[in-house]
Amino acid sequence: RRRRAVLFFPSALCCTEELLAEAEGGRPSPCPCPLPRADCSFSRLLRLLLSARRSLELCLFSFSSPELGRAVAVLHRRGVRVRVVTDAQYMALRGSQIGALRMLGIQVRHDQEKGFMHHKFAIVDKKLLITGSLNWTVEAIHNNRENVVVMEDAEYVRPFLDEFERIWEEYNPD
Amino acid sequence: RRRRAVLFFPSALCCTEELLAEAEGGRPSPCPCPLPRADCSFSRLLRLLLSARRSLELCLFSFSSPELGRAVAVLHRRGVRVRVVTDAQYMALRGSQIGALRMLGIQVRHDQEKGFMHHKFAIVDKKLLITGSLNWTVEAIHNNRENVVVMEDAEYVRPFLDEFERIWEEYNPD
Ligand SMILES: [Zn+2]
Ligand SMILES: [Zn+2]
Repeated sequence: RRRRAVLFFPSALCCTEELLAEAEGGRPSPCPCPLPRADCSFSRLLRLLLSARRSLELCLFSFSSPELGRAVAVLHRRGVRVRVVTDAQYMALRGSQIGALRMLGIQVRHDQEKGFMHHKFAIVDKKLLITGSLNWTVEAIHNNRENVVVMEDAEYVRPFLDEFERIWEEYNPD
Repeated sequence: RRRRAVLFFPSALCCTEELLAEAEGGRPSPCPCPLPRADCSFSRLLRLLLSARRSLELCLFSFSSPELGRAVAVLHRRGVRVRVVTDAQYMALRGSQIGALRMLGIQVRHDQEKGFMHHKFAIVDKKLLITGSLNWTVEAIHNNRENVVVMEDAEYVRPFLDEFERIWEEYNPD
């Protein structure tokens, strides 16, 4: 059955610590924070990403959320093939997760163009598309009005995969 | 049959003058510019908007494209009920179309919040959703890597309509 959803932000506050600790294979010691354990838009986004088994393509204008960074690092450690395309102007900003992900061995490519690489999409296992207005930043997740559309219809996923591969090749530094 | 599409930007260059002049009810005198007449992502976006017959909801972080401004003005003049929600910080910027649309009598509401109203979606006749990463600016259309997803599936359109109505009420100045 196809996963289909629309997530709106700002996300309600909810604790994502146990979700991430469990994905990291840690002991599920209860988080002492007072946030509710119910699902919120943000935890649903994390769960969708953590469902990856083989591949994850990320095409992101900006990426500074520590929790999303942890989720991507876990996937890489599990053997999921992670590839990241990002915008050169934003990857050097304070709080960017890009440098840390590169240090873990994740492949990252960025533009050399004058325009922005303004996409904000992810493709899980070549079949689940996660796209919308949401940059992967703390501000966007918790302060902005944003949307994320989740779909598995090949009519939509295929063009985004093709776009990713086009950009990936174009940003090849070799 | 459901309209479904993915549009990528930057758009190829193509002349949109005749398309807009025809929509405005002007004489279809040929445009003297040298741009190709073939469809491009931008002309496809304009055509989708111009297909509106009854209503157009716009929920846009920034709106400065003169062509998109003309398209929205045409729809208003035709009697389509146009409602615009936008971000307060951006509506005052140079080149914003918001002031001009307001002068025509189009209803505009904006946020009073500290976060951004960062959506970029349009809903045509309550049934066609146009959403993605694309802000309605000249730079985004012609310089940036952007995506726009077009869909009529009620599963996706309905939540966006609900989100629009929520924001519309919340930004009610009265
Ligand atoms: Zn917690
Ligand atoms: Zn022309």
